[in-house]
Amino acid sequence: MYHSEKLRAVIKKLMLFPGVGEKTAMRFAMFLIQSPKSFVESLAKDIVEMKEKVKLCKECFFISENELCRFCSDEKRDRTKICVVESIEDVFTVERANVWDGLYHVLWGVISAREGLDISQLKIKELVTRVISKDIREVLIFTDTTVEGEATAMYIKKLLSNFDVKITRPAYGIPLGMEVEYIDPATLKRALSSREEVK
Amino acid sequence: MYHSEKLRAVIKKLMLFPGVGEKTAMRFAMFLIQSPKSFVESLAKDIVEMKEKVKLCKECFFISENELCRFCSDEKRDRTKICVVESIEDVFTVERANVWDGLYHVLWGVISAREGLDISQLKIKELVTRVISKDIREVLIFTDTTVEGEATAMYIKKLLSNFDVKITRPAYGIPLGMEVEYIDPATLKRALSSREEVK
Repeated sequence: MYHSEKLRAVIKKLMLFPGVGEKTAMRFAMFLIQSPKSFVESLAKDIVEMKEKVKLCKECFFISENELCRFCSDEKRDRTKICVVESIEDVFTVERANVWDGLYHVLWGVISAREGLDISQLKIKELVTRVISKDIREVLIFTDTTVEGEATAMYIKKLLSNFDVKITRPAYGIPLGMEVEYIDPATLKRALSSREEVK
Repeated sequence: MYHSEKLRAVIKKLMLFPGVGEKTAMRFAMFLIQSPKSFVESLAKDIVEMKEKVKLCKECFFISENELCRFCSDEKRDRTKICVVESIEDVFTVERANVWDGLYHVLWGVISAREGLDISQLKIKELVTRVISKDIREVLIFTDTTVEGEATAMYIKKLLSNFDVKITRPAYGIPLGMEVEYIDPATLKRALSSREEVK
């Protein structure tokens, strides 16, 4: 139905991208067909070169063009603290807040029965190895507050509970600037059950 | 902030894709970084080859690997009728209904003040040329029923009104299988003002 084997090949590959269905893949392909040849060629060159150059840091699995990423190779960082996140994007979010001076550990996903993600595909084993082999005092587990994120956090907590390391999670509660009217029941429940005395 | 010039280059290009913002571009780039090298290389090869092979039909601007697309080169099609659509995807939609035996004309967009699309970028001039130079009896204008789609239809209708060609639009009204409860006011208004006598 695509009237071109090459178009079909491109669409099939684009459909493997996260969140891309057939219609979006088709729209992307049409965009490429309409684009100047020079753009398509340089995009093709860029993705191959990116794939060659950008590796994962061998310590924390953040992206890096070197063996160690800029966090793991930064002497000013507190090397006794690791913030465990699901994805590269989460590292950017934490960095933007400019409040974490420790290292990171990117899991590259969460335990998910639905998506059939094998636990061995996540960088959990590597996290345990880091905790065992380095002088790590604190592991801050900062996964999403989804079912999968919580399950992953619990799994990691259990794995690390045998070691002499403090395991922390961020405080959960009402986000700043939020109007009471719009707070969802789950957040409200958590915020009230963890309420603090004003002194 | 991307920690890699190559990653930055890929993200900047992916952000030019329709509907792709920085977060989605980042997610796509992470997908590529995680994918096997062979996949990234064959994707790069495929998009370059598709760009080389897939052209636009010189008559109707549907996609084709040849000068004329499969519709324009199909002798069984009624060459006196042209269905004008906004995009390639729209041709697929009409074809799926298996009810149109004429040719097509793909505009590659609509007149849009918002997106600043120059009318000269659309294949409207080429449509007029087709109507003048070929024996065209009917032009079915099948643009979307959006403000832009309607404006484009009106513009084309005006341009073609000087020529001896029947200009049609599909009937608009209640879609089949629709429950009355869920019909939007605009469709309802149109359907009632165009109501037909039951004989």
